[in-house]
Amino acid sequence: MKVYVAIDLPDDLTERIRKYADVVGEDRAEEADAMLCFSVDRELLRRMRRLKFIQVTTAGLDHLPWEDIPPNVTVAGNAGSNAAPVAEFALALLLAAYKKILYYNAKMKRGDYARDIEVPPLEGRKVAVLGLGEIGTRVARALAALGASVYGFSRTPKEGPWRFTNRLEEALAGASAAVSALPLTKHTRGMIRYEHLALMAEDAIFVNVGRAEVVDKEAVERILKERPRFIYASDVWWGRNDFGKDADVIIMPNVIATPWIAGGYGSAEIRRRMLEEAVENLIRWLRGETPKNIARREDFV
Amino acid sequence: MKVYVAIDLPDDLTERIRKYADVVGEDRAEEADAMLCFSVDRELLRRMRRLKFIQVTTAGLDHLPWEDIPPNVTVAGNAGSNAAPVAEFALALLLAAYKKILYYNAKMKRGDYARDIEVPPLEGRKVAVLGLGEIGTRVARALAALGASVYGFSRTPKEGPWRFTNRLEEALAGASAAVSALPLTKHTRGMIRYEHLALMAEDAIFVNVGRAEVVDKEAVERILKERPRFIYASDVWWGRNDFGKDADVIIMPNVIATPWIAGGYGSAEIRRRMLEEAVENLIRWLRGETPKNIARREDFV
Repeated sequence: MKVYVAIDLPDDLTERIRKYADVVGEDRAEEADAMLCFSVDRELLRRMRRLKFIQVTTAGLDHLPWEDIPPNVTVAGNAGSNAAPVAEFALALLLAAYKKILYYNAKMKRGDYARDIEVPPLEGRKVAVLGLGEIGTRVARALAALGASVYGFSRTPKEGPWRFTNRLEEALAGASAAVSALPLTKHTRGMIRYEHLALMAEDAIFVNVGRAEVVDKEAVERILKERPRFIYASDVWWGRNDFGKDADVIIMPNVIATPWIAGGYGSAEIRRRMLEEAVENLIRWLRGETPKNIARREDFV
Repeated sequence: MKVYVAIDLPDDLTERIRKYADVVGEDRAEEADAMLCFSVDRELLRRMRRLKFIQVTTAGLDHLPWEDIPPNVTVAGNAGSNAAPVAEFALALLLAAYKKILYYNAKMKRGDYARDIEVPPLEGRKVAVLGLGEIGTRVARALAALGASVYGFSRTPKEGPWRFTNRLEEALAGASAAVSALPLTKHTRGMIRYEHLALMAEDAIFVNVGRAEVVDKEAVERILKERPRFIYASDVWWGRNDFGKDADVIIMPNVIATPWIAGGYGSAEIRRRMLEEAVENLIRWLRGETPKNIARREDFV
């Protein structure tokens, strides 16, 4: 077996792969049975006639050129590899927004000590968790442990300390907060529209640590303009890493914005962990085992 | 039995007391067997010769004039009544600081999108929870659920998903973060000194939602000056509600400051809940039951 490693991989991880296969460079990509990559382009795919398996290093798979990937090639993602820190980040955004930490800290810094916005308990409040993958599940469990009334939304029923629903409206109606940890697929793109956000409480918090494109950008702008107490707290943006494209939303007073740092982009430690898990999963395939996180092609094409 | 209600109490709660006792005003305070109050002054105590029980509405009891309260008067506090929202607030401060939410949000607002500070996972990191009362216990459980390695510090051993220690040094050594939910007593005043803070990680977060006076103010100033990456995130201040007295610390760049809003001061809903629980506890005493939260006089005198 031969593996084309298309990313910078630390030597010790390359050695792990070498126990099960030859590792080849781009010059010999056409000999490779499997590939470890961030993404892949059409031209390269055309050359790789022996390719049977693609292991992607990222949790999301929405950036792959799905139309160009032959249906007989198995694609595995890396969901879960950064789930713990991304779930922590979602809670950080949610609690910071809910408890008005940024608002009051800014006031304190300028010597304004007036308590002019209520800081209610989260215990007992309805919170929607959209997406019950490894990130959403962790967020939902933590919120349930804090005593929130959690509604878990997913297409597939999943049991846990939440009330399950596959109806977005039921999850969001009257909710004090929502966290989106949804992957971006052809089903979820633009799924959350104005009428959904409008179902939430007047001063609700919407947290996004999944993909920006799951939420309609114009809907976010409209609800934020109409409801000054509504807060959109997000780590992910429609312009991906080109944050300047979303500066119009980012600078709004009821937006809390971070530059896509919850997972691998935010920490070398997390990136290392993600590479380790991707290599482990690739090795599963090389050993003839079933890899984790096999993509459903029909979610993207 | 007669109860002197020394605070503004909603009518429905006054009615609850009336089922078990007469409610009297300040003019008839000397007839009262019990008192419901925020605090009490010496002159009033001198008049109240029949007084046997004081129910305080606050969780902390450090503001009472302990020297003036006769030893035969039982004092009950209101710990636990605001534990859920205060624990939520502690997590909000901790996670917001740890995930650099305020830092990156401020940068995003001015169009600076550079990822120049690492945002590591909290999972697996050592976090000290100081004080294992109802607030500390909730904080510790939530952190353990997130996968942090929790050290629980208290004078009395308590079991839970933490490593218990009654040695402050053991709790703080190498910790990435600490949360103080300690009450202010004669034992805890000024307990956390420079040498304790210096045991923590270079970029540690110290969160205080208990009482400011548990931590030495000069120690905080010194560690923040010596370690620019150390963060002190606090809702409580040495000047109590006179925040201007602590403006020197509040304005430091590595301080996250909120104006004592985690509990009753932050929300009418929490204040109402606290009054309900104080009335319930007073009624326990009126019915001859053992009230909760009976103060240990020797902690204060």
